[in-house]
Amino acid sequence: MNVGGKQYRSIWLEADGRSVSYIDQTELPFAFVVRRMTRVDEAAEAIRAMRVRGAPLIGATAAFGICLALAEDHTDASLKSAVELLLATRPTARNLRWALDQMLAEVKDLRPPQRPAAAFAKAKAICDQDVAVCRAIGEHGFRLLRETSATKRGPVNVLTHCNAGWLACVDLGTALAPVYRAHAAGLPVHVWVDETRPRNQGALTAWELKAHGVPHTVIVDNAGGLLMQQGKVDLCLVGTDRTTGQGDVCNKIGTYLKALAAKDNGVPFYVALPSSSIDWETDGRSIPIEERGADEVVCVSGRTGAGERVTISVMPEASTANYGFDVTPARLITALVTERGLCPASAKGLRALFPENAEPERRRRQRRTRG
Amino acid sequence: MNVGGKQYRSIWLEADGRSVSYIDQTELPFAFVVRRMTRVDEAAEAIRAMRVRGAPLIGATAAFGICLALAEDHTDASLKSAVELLLATRPTARNLRWALDQMLAEVKDLRPPQRPAAAFAKAKAICDQDVAVCRAIGEHGFRLLRETSATKRGPVNVLTHCNAGWLACVDLGTALAPVYRAHAAGLPVHVWVDETRPRNQGALTAWELKAHGVPHTVIVDNAGGLLMQQGKVDLCLVGTDRTTGQGDVCNKIGTYLKALAAKDNGVPFYVALPSSSIDWETDGRSIPIEERGADEVVCVSGRTGAGERVTISVMPEASTANYGFDVTPARLITALVTERGLCPASAKGLRALFPENAEPERRRRQRRTRG
Repeated sequence: MNVGGKQYRSIWLEADGRSVSYIDQTELPFAFVVRRMTRVDEAAEAIRAMRVRGAPLIGATAAFGICLALAEDHTDASLKSAVELLLATRPTARNLRWALDQMLAEVKDLRPPQRPAAAFAKAKAICDQDVAVCRAIGEHGFRLLRETSATKRGPVNVLTHCNAGWLACVDLGTALAPVYRAHAAGLPVHVWVDETRPRNQGALTAWELKAHGVPHTVIVDNAGGLLMQQGKVDLCLVGTDRTTGQGDVCNKIGTYLKALAAKDNGVPFYVALPSSSIDWETDGRSIPIEERGADEVVCVSGRTGAGERVTISVMPEASTANYGFDVTPARLITALVTERGLCPASAKGLRALFPENAEPERRRRQRRTRG
Repeated sequence: MNVGGKQYRSIWLEADGRSVSYIDQTELPFAFVVRRMTRVDEAAEAIRAMRVRGAPLIGATAAFGICLALAEDHTDASLKSAVELLLATRPTARNLRWALDQMLAEVKDLRPPQRPAAAFAKAKAICDQDVAVCRAIGEHGFRLLRETSATKRGPVNVLTHCNAGWLACVDLGTALAPVYRAHAAGLPVHVWVDETRPRNQGALTAWELKAHGVPHTVIVDNAGGLLMQQGKVDLCLVGTDRTTGQGDVCNKIGTYLKALAAKDNGVPFYVALPSSSIDWETDGRSIPIEERGADEVVCVSGRTGAGERVTISVMPEASTANYGFDVTPARLITALVTERGLCPASAKGLRALFPENAEPERRRRQRRTRG
């Protein structure tokens, strides 16, 4: 997408074929900073510190992390330690494991000297595939927005939580891809942007939408229920970090509360996802919920009136808890929007759309366990 | 309650009998600042700027505002303009109108020179009555906590939203009164404190609980659903700004989302309220929902590492909306905890507990409309 008139992806291989650049999202929305990395530990740090975030982008970054490790040392030991390092960065993200599995499958049986070139090619292919998947999600979701628009006057009001836009992917986004597609088609659309405490990823969503010229309004996470009671939300559209084979959706903490409000007010609740974020073998109760540091609750970053970037405490030392995700049960979800189209949030719905996935995945797992 | 070993109320008449002091809650939780006021416009500003907040305390402050106006000018014109000024400060607060009605009834038929003394006496009585009401709510709510404690090991885990503690009242609090009562009785209790964006009143709740030694954990507003899914909440207990005669509860924005999560997870959801916050003649859909400035969403106040108090923007100029309250439908509420005991959140339940209120209130209204 465009930033200041220039087209960007959120991560890309530089022309030297050996270093990888990405947009540092901890600097947004106030500053647009591109960072270049050449070592796997930089990739791990970028994921861990959430300089890159969003399930697909975490996957792409991890894939490039493997490339950087192999470029430095193409041995089995290097490959193994890179996988372990990257896998430990964010325990909930499904795409992280998916991308690492893809990279492993691509390079592990090659002669070590061949690995770096194959890895870079595969990481680039993962990025291109992500863009193609997001484009397809955008098309399928766009039809929902168009149908909604046909039934009402004024813009289609979409509520979204966290950031599932192009910054969370390589380009286009998942939940926001249909919004961008609608906007491009001239369909009037307005987005209610949950600020998404504690990390305020809503500021990223607002930044994206503003840069692209899509009307939007930032609200606190507490507000969505009232807006739905008042008929100000036509549909909810969120992303996901991991979807179970039963259609339960693990996403940024607070998603579940919006799904409950949508159900209570007859507002459709859609989840946009690439099939790579489906975990066919886990149920909603078994997904590990990442706990993060207390600092994220107590400290807030922003800009003073004088333009200085500072981090402040919003309360004195306090006892806090900080869970990253919650699980929205499938029964609250109107439909899943995937790259292959819409399906009910259920085992049956998912298996009908992805008949090839359930079995091969199980076999792959067994192979990995044995290997 | 105690602050630094000295006992305080949140507002009090000074020994001079002519000035009123209150704890400036915009300075908390970092600084404990007492402000003294002598004019009605200072009282109005204190309410409008939320230096005082919480339904009962707003009522008490408005009552003292009438005193200050009459002490300066005891004419009908002064009384009328003071009522109008104070009534306009916070449109949603029920106790504001209740307290002003009480003050009006007390002084309007007196000879003007008698009004100031009568007003101060009445305002003081309103404060004392509020403390007595909170004490009774504490006793009734305590029984709930004791019953819960009997069914489990470890502390009773209470989730609360916003601040309905002693800072929101004159003393003791509404939702927190049962918690303080339980703590005094040696019953182990732990409070999950919603931070309550956009104004972070959870920091006030945490400050109160810490000062009193009650175990608590601050969480973002997004977290409560997950905690309930995980069985970490035994009951929810919140305050209210206005309760309808049908048992619908208007409270700080986001309360509705927690009530939905409680219902979905079989967690009891209680609302503690003085009967003065019941609006017998309004239904949930007719309550005006206060809209506040965008600054509250975009700007956050806190303290830098160097100890300086600053306000920062968490995002660049953004389009925002900021609604103060939502309405939790009676069907989501397990019971109302009033000074007369518990009752179902329904017209029948409320009228059984307050049989005298529905009719006289209607007659008073009609009198006011005719007068």
